[in-house]
Amino acid sequence: MKIPVGILGATGMVGQQYLFKLINHPYFELSFLAASSASSGKTYAEAVKGRWYLEETLPEEIGNLPLHSIDDLATAKERCRLVFSAVDSAVAKNYEERYAEMGLAVVSNASYHRQSVDVPILIPEINADHLAIIANQRKNRGWKKGLIVVKPNCSLQSYMIPLAPLHQQFQVKRLVVTTLQAISGAGVSGLSSLSILDNVIPYIAQEERKSEIEPLKIWGKIEGDQIIPASDIAIAAHCNRVPVVDGHMACLSVAFSIKPKIEEILPIWEHFEGAAQQLQLPSAPKKPILYREESDRPQPRLDRLTGKGMVVTVGRLRECPVFDLRFTALSHNTIRGAAGGGILNAELLVAKGWVS
Amino acid sequence: MKIPVGILGATGMVGQQYLFKLINHPYFELSFLAASSASSGKTYAEAVKGRWYLEETLPEEIGNLPLHSIDDLATAKERCRLVFSAVDSAVAKNYEERYAEMGLAVVSNASYHRQSVDVPILIPEINADHLAIIANQRKNRGWKKGLIVVKPNCSLQSYMIPLAPLHQQFQVKRLVVTTLQAISGAGVSGLSSLSILDNVIPYIAQEERKSEIEPLKIWGKIEGDQIIPASDIAIAAHCNRVPVVDGHMACLSVAFSIKPKIEEILPIWEHFEGAAQQLQLPSAPKKPILYREESDRPQPRLDRLTGKGMVVTVGRLRECPVFDLRFTALSHNTIRGAAGGGILNAELLVAKGWVS
Amino acid sequence: MKIPVGILGATGMVGQQYLFKLINHPYFELSFLAASSASSGKTYAEAVKGRWYLEETLPEEIGNLPLHSIDDLATAKERCRLVFSAVDSAVAKNYEERYAEMGLAVVSNASYHRQSVDVPILIPEINADHLAIIANQRKNRGWKKGLIVVKPNCSLQSYMIPLAPLHQQFQVKRLVVTTLQAISGAGVSGLSSLSILDNVIPYIAQEERKSEIEPLKIWGKIEGDQIIPASDIAIAAHCNRVPVVDGHMACLSVAFSIKPKIEEILPIWEHFEGAAQQLQLPSAPKKPILYREESDRPQPRLDRLTGKGMVVTVGRLRECPVFDLRFTALSHNTIRGAAGGGILNAELLVAKGWVS
Amino acid sequence: MKIPVGILGATGMVGQQYLFKLINHPYFELSFLAASSASSGKTYAEAVKGRWYLEETLPEEIGNLPLHSIDDLATAKERCRLVFSAVDSAVAKNYEERYAEMGLAVVSNASYHRQSVDVPILIPEINADHLAIIANQRKNRGWKKGLIVVKPNCSLQSYMIPLAPLHQQFQVKRLVVTTLQAISGAGVSGLSSLSILDNVIPYIAQEERKSEIEPLKIWGKIEGDQIIPASDIAIAAHCNRVPVVDGHMACLSVAFSIKPKIEEILPIWEHFEGAAQQLQLPSAPKKPILYREESDRPQPRLDRLTGKGMVVTVGRLRECPVFDLRFTALSHNTIRGAAGGGILNAELLVAKGWVS
Repeated sequence: MKIPVGILGATGMVGQQYLFKLINHPYFELSFLAASSASSGKTYAEAVKGRWYLEETLPEEIGNLPLHSIDDLATAKERCRLVFSAVDSAVAKNYEERYAEMGLAVVSNASYHRQSVDVPILIPEINADHLAIIANQRKNRGWKKGLIVVKPNCSLQSYMIPLAPLHQQFQVKRLVVTTLQAISGAGVSGLSSLSILDNVIPYIAQEERKSEIEPLKIWGKIEGDQIIPASDIAIAAHCNRVPVVDGHMACLSVAFSIKPKIEEILPIWEHFEGAAQQLQLPSAPKKPILYREESDRPQPRLDRLTGKGMVVTVGRLRECPVFDLRFTALSHNTIRGAAGGGILNAELLVAKGWVS
Repeated sequence: MKIPVGILGATGMVGQQYLFKLINHPYFELSFLAASSASSGKTYAEAVKGRWYLEETLPEEIGNLPLHSIDDLATAKERCRLVFSAVDSAVAKNYEERYAEMGLAVVSNASYHRQSVDVPILIPEINADHLAIIANQRKNRGWKKGLIVVKPNCSLQSYMIPLAPLHQQFQVKRLVVTTLQAISGAGVSGLSSLSILDNVIPYIAQEERKSEIEPLKIWGKIEGDQIIPASDIAIAAHCNRVPVVDGHMACLSVAFSIKPKIEEILPIWEHFEGAAQQLQLPSAPKKPILYREESDRPQPRLDRLTGKGMVVTVGRLRECPVFDLRFTALSHNTIRGAAGGGILNAELLVAKGWVS
Repeated sequence: MKIPVGILGATGMVGQQYLFKLINHPYFELSFLAASSASSGKTYAEAVKGRWYLEETLPEEIGNLPLHSIDDLATAKERCRLVFSAVDSAVAKNYEERYAEMGLAVVSNASYHRQSVDVPILIPEINADHLAIIANQRKNRGWKKGLIVVKPNCSLQSYMIPLAPLHQQFQVKRLVVTTLQAISGAGVSGLSSLSILDNVIPYIAQEERKSEIEPLKIWGKIEGDQIIPASDIAIAAHCNRVPVVDGHMACLSVAFSIKPKIEEILPIWEHFEGAAQQLQLPSAPKKPILYREESDRPQPRLDRLTGKGMVVTVGRLRECPVFDLRFTALSHNTIRGAAGGGILNAELLVAKGWVS
Repeated sequence: MKIPVGILGATGMVGQQYLFKLINHPYFELSFLAASSASSGKTYAEAVKGRWYLEETLPEEIGNLPLHSIDDLATAKERCRLVFSAVDSAVAKNYEERYAEMGLAVVSNASYHRQSVDVPILIPEINADHLAIIANQRKNRGWKKGLIVVKPNCSLQSYMIPLAPLHQQFQVKRLVVTTLQAISGAGVSGLSSLSILDNVIPYIAQEERKSEIEPLKIWGKIEGDQIIPASDIAIAAHCNRVPVVDGHMACLSVAFSIKPKIEEILPIWEHFEGAAQQLQLPSAPKKPILYREESDRPQPRLDRLTGKGMVVTVGRLRECPVFDLRFTALSHNTIRGAAGGGILNAELLVAKGWVS
């Protein structure tokens, strides 16, 4: 028996990606599609007409599904057990808690709850243990079955995973990270063509702040009823938009508390497994990190689809004259960094028994 | 009376840029064009037919100039007093010393002599005082009137100039710099379109090494008959190629020996002048640094031609959580970073009396 | 004494281009800037803050000019004699006639009046004689001094000028034209980056219809109080958007009533002059057409700025197996095709005595 | 029992694509890889090191295969029954006939034999009946079992298939076609990035000639021992290179001998099947043509992978003011237009009993 799930913000680009990835999912059955009340009453196909952004064709049986208003919580409750929230932060603020209160698990892409002390920012390879905070979340908020988990900002995914086993063993102390982020990260019409063709934009609103705060919470510890962010780690981020369709890249210089030998690193990455692998989650790649030996990799166009877009590709590991190590990492921002990452979080909730 | 000058490697992209910038130059008169012996005997127009890379049209009177073999040193000696060397490093090795030995001033773009202890890596705004080493250069090598000066690697130009007055006042101690470099830096056919469209390449051969060594020499001091590189400065460079036509950008995190207050920086940049400005060199912009207040600048397409491509545009100055300061800088790699920078060096040689 | 002029829609991209081109214009003095009433009361610099699209820096003296509401016709009348209309078609409908009625000459970029039978679609090299219709325009509409002239759709400019002397001599009969148009033609935020990077869009709303109708009017004749479009000419247009910043290109196959010999064509283009050249209008290039002999030209990035963006570059003239001739043509869509073309029209009005 | 096959030019981009598509092919077993004699003796993985162009990773078992010299015909004969020739035209001239003479079927991508009167230019959906010429080919050339078939120039594939059923019913009389071709068509390093970024190149060597001649042969008839090209059809091609990674697009205006009604066309395309479909060849899409109703399709990035890159996507069917019909068509140049098309040809040879 599959778990019935819904999508909030089903007509947007991330919503479409969720929808597509949920077709024939081994755990989940798509049973509720919601968008703003303006779309309510239409079929899904009618609502996305002229706004279907995926290369794949919308299957007819999905296109015929009815679209509900996000305000129609009663139907949501009746139809599903978990919702993927692909709405923007302002909408998330209004709805995610209401859905959770009603008893649904909310797996969110929105940034609204990332700094809520009882909501984990989940990357299943890194901090699956943070799920334990859900007990407090429910208790504090008086929820019986509902819960909220969120994924981090999309650009972090490329380097948090390769940093994870290094942090565990050597403790990250200082990190200077410069990102080269794809235009799809700005959404379907977020970035005009005239602004980025033959150009780079050295600024993405809020991105650097998120990149400096969220890792600390992901590396934090549960103490009492809160996730306490890691301390004594300094992160400086420079976030740039580049004319690349998909794939966020990051150049890192890292200092650790315990200085690693450079020859230790590749075996660590090679053997790294997180909860996602140990639990053999359906969307989890067998190995979450692929290190490429070529001197000029990773490259967004060549490497973003590695492991169906769920593997982080790493390259150029070398000594850093300023800190300990340098390397470059890449992940697919609209797969691992969005719907793919969200579904992996939902799979973890199922495998760990939080949703059934 | 203008000084007669020549171009070695006159048919290549950088050679063409030199040629164009020397038309109607107030100090220099173009009087010798050299390329490999294969082109010798042709007119310049014949030799660049199908290989003229500039947007501007080749003027007829220049096109009719004869092209000489680079081996024709006798003609060079007779015709000119200074040559701009736009040949690659392997050719530079063979010819630059022979031209200098013959009595000509050689202003080079090639990397070959950048680590020769008696050859200055010149940026007129920064280390015009290094010209003093020429006396030793001549003495050691037994040259009467000849000399060699070189320009640094093109990607350095964007950040060495804004760092210059800060280094002078606060002393750079640690620098993590990530560059986003334009495709024109790879030369006319250096980079295939398939390798870079919808892509980033996180590697440029030799570029990081140069970026970590050359600044130390530029910031070095003359001791005895050598330029001794600055010590106690750690630099880590991450060099990337991005799909931008012209304009190298750099994101910097910097620590200084003396911690500056952030509000001190903009006035320092605003008032910064180097020898190029003090001597009012013809190619020197009035102010070498333009700081842009907008949150999303500098951008290559919008800012690369500032000050006819000779001004460095800086933006995004902010505190660095890891070091002291962060900022982003941009310069035009084929103008300030190539022929424009070379001509500025030659103008400095004239203004300082080394060539007449 | 210069003629005082204004700009309607001064804060948009085309308005900014007009503004920049009018600084130090030999005929015109900028004296009135208008935008929607929302901007009224601000200085121009305040209104374009964060929306300044040109590479050139906004000069301070221009930035300090006050911005008026487009509804402030009284001030317009007092301050200027001619206005450049850079508003969109819906706004043009509401205002252009009111400005003309009030006694001002309106030189418009908008499409609204292109099919009005008493308004000429002007290209000074082609149909300067259509200015004669202004007498009727005034008479019919009861205007004393006011008038309206419009420029054609931007993509036509690249091929109407090279076709002009051929049409005159051989009469165009059939034309199949496929355009490859730059993204700047869609306006500042008209086209999302995700829609065009690594892509082509084979459709531009209304563009093909305009491309098939406007040439007929430009080649039309004044009969009575109307411009009667040319007949017996069939045009088929295929309009595509390509990832190019500036420069509209067109591939043409043309049949004529009188079959030309191919060797006649280049001399015709070489010697072609229109009223713009004969009257030596300040913005007119000496020769409006440049034919390039290379097999792979024109190219947008290399040729768009020929003649400060006012020259049409043509190449690849060859026999057509289906019709008579084939060639490729290019013009700068935001210069010749927008503000540059508009100013040339205004210069023609002055030179011909319609505005003084 | 699968048929053992080889690849000539296995290390190039097209060779790599053949190799990848032949893994687990239902008809074919990869058993011979050849390149220039320089690579002979290496494993395949060694030979393509640093020159592996596909996004997919080279499987280890394939990487370990030995690479042979293309001169090693004896091994080829022993190991395989059919070779895919992915060499350039000059090499094809030297080797393809020798391989065929030796008894092997040669399925070629090279242009060398496209105008040989006894060699069919095959598109299985269109002219499978041309295989009959192979009997003459063998007889004339004294070959027992060998044969040569070629595929057409890659840009034709996008429009020859949608034209096929229309030609059959209404007879194409005149065709003006303008192509917008992807950079991958120029090969791995065929086009420098500086030549095409923010640019269009309105010329591709030989492309227009091929586009005007090859369709006539494809639509030709076997008479005696020759394929006689169709006559009374005039084709004019304008071929452009655009900054798109993969996917050749074409805009067509077509006149027919029998004027079709526009409403007849979509049902014809919808129901079109060729021999590839009737024989259910493994690489054949169920329907070779997909018509998209949206006004702005096909688009290269969105549509090139339709049907695993083997379907031609068509859109924008409309009346042509000059001829009868206009439309836009797109196919994947390195799949349908290269290795995918070649393998489909080989499958047809097997299904029709020419290779066993």
